[in-house]
Amino acid sequence: MRYDIFMNDFTPEEIDSLYRVMAARRDMRHFSSEPIDPALLDRLLAAANLAPSVGLMQPWRFIRVRDRSLRLGVHALVDEERRRTAHALGEREAEFMRLKVEGILECGELLVAALAPGREKHVFGRRTMPDMDLASVACAIQNLWLAARAEGIGMGWVSILTPGRPNKILDVPESWRFLGYFCVGYPQAETDIPELERAGWETRRNSQTFILRR
Amino acid sequence: MRYDIFMNDFTPEEIDSLYRVMAARRDMRHFSSEPIDPALLDRLLAAANLAPSVGLMQPWRFIRVRDRSLRLGVHALVDEERRRTAHALGEREAEFMRLKVEGILECGELLVAALAPGREKHVFGRRTMPDMDLASVACAIQNLWLAARAEGIGMGWVSILTPGRPNKILDVPESWRFLGYFCVGYPQAETDIPELERAGWETRRNSQTFILRR
Repeated sequence: MRYDIFMNDFTPEEIDSLYRVMAARRDMRHFSSEPIDPALLDRLLAAANLAPSVGLMQPWRFIRVRDRSLRLGVHALVDEERRRTAHALGEREAEFMRLKVEGILECGELLVAALAPGREKHVFGRRTMPDMDLASVACAIQNLWLAARAEGIGMGWVSILTPGRPNKILDVPESWRFLGYFCVGYPQAETDIPELERAGWETRRNSQTFILRR
Repeated sequence: MRYDIFMNDFTPEEIDSLYRVMAARRDMRHFSSEPIDPALLDRLLAAANLAPSVGLMQPWRFIRVRDRSLRLGVHALVDEERRRTAHALGEREAEFMRLKVEGILECGELLVAALAPGREKHVFGRRTMPDMDLASVACAIQNLWLAARAEGIGMGWVSILTPGRPNKILDVPESWRFLGYFCVGYPQAETDIPELERAGWETRRNSQTFILRR
């Protein structure tokens, strides 16, 4: 993709539609199994690659899991960790076990996002802040998510994950750090209320809550 | 903000404009000192608050630095770490010192983004992946950045930062972890080529480089 870019080239309508995409993005767990057009998936991944990265290192990696048995393997790992999470939650264990937390077996596409460790030279912006590479991958995921939402595709971020285990299953270097499994697909239903809010798990707070002045 | 949301409510033109915003977003270091309308700044911060967060914990905090002496203090910290980074880069030291890496003194608004540690209950999606809170803050920053770009505002992410030091200067809890200083303002000039690529520091690679199939 190449665009001619001018600072004020977005109309009020375009700016408004960007805010609408952001407001409409939800963490989805209910998918139909309808497949996603490969060209559309490529657009979403190209959007991810437009994210900022510290020192322009582009540390993100995306694994497209097509093999059904691999998908089952990933699901089994998630389910194991889901039970451990429930146990760690103590008094909310039963409530947590009732939540639907992923759509790995149903979604049209299963993606896995990973952080590949920086080459030694990526010191710029990271000497005292090594985790900025992880922040860059998160920005790429957010781009992917917004692009998906605009295209009518839902996504769910599953970080119920046992570090190290997916590396073996997916045959990638041990040094890669996984950020999550990403269920991508056409949603079964939709809502403008986050699933965790609807389920009474947590409530959202207004942006003013998070702003300080100095 | 409240919107009526339907899954296919974005037109092809709106989808295209989202991709254009993503492609046009740059890390900016050259600003005019023109002030930013407070209502516009509020919209950008509200966009940040629309980001996903693990367990809906909303761990982001934004500090709007208005005091000039605080801004000078932040700049001095960055300059100290910039010299240490240059030294650590070894043979690229002189080249690095020639790069303009921030616009802290010139930009219209200086924001600081921080991660406030989770309350004990935020175990969901974080039991084995504690850094998912940092990833959530990065998603909020990416929302802020895209919104800024669409509104004709440039932003630069400065992670040349000495952990611990800004907490004292900005009078926030020691437990907060800073992700960076964010220069926000009207750009002096613009380009579709990343500054680090234009300066010959690093080159971008195509999205296909980062996709694996399994």
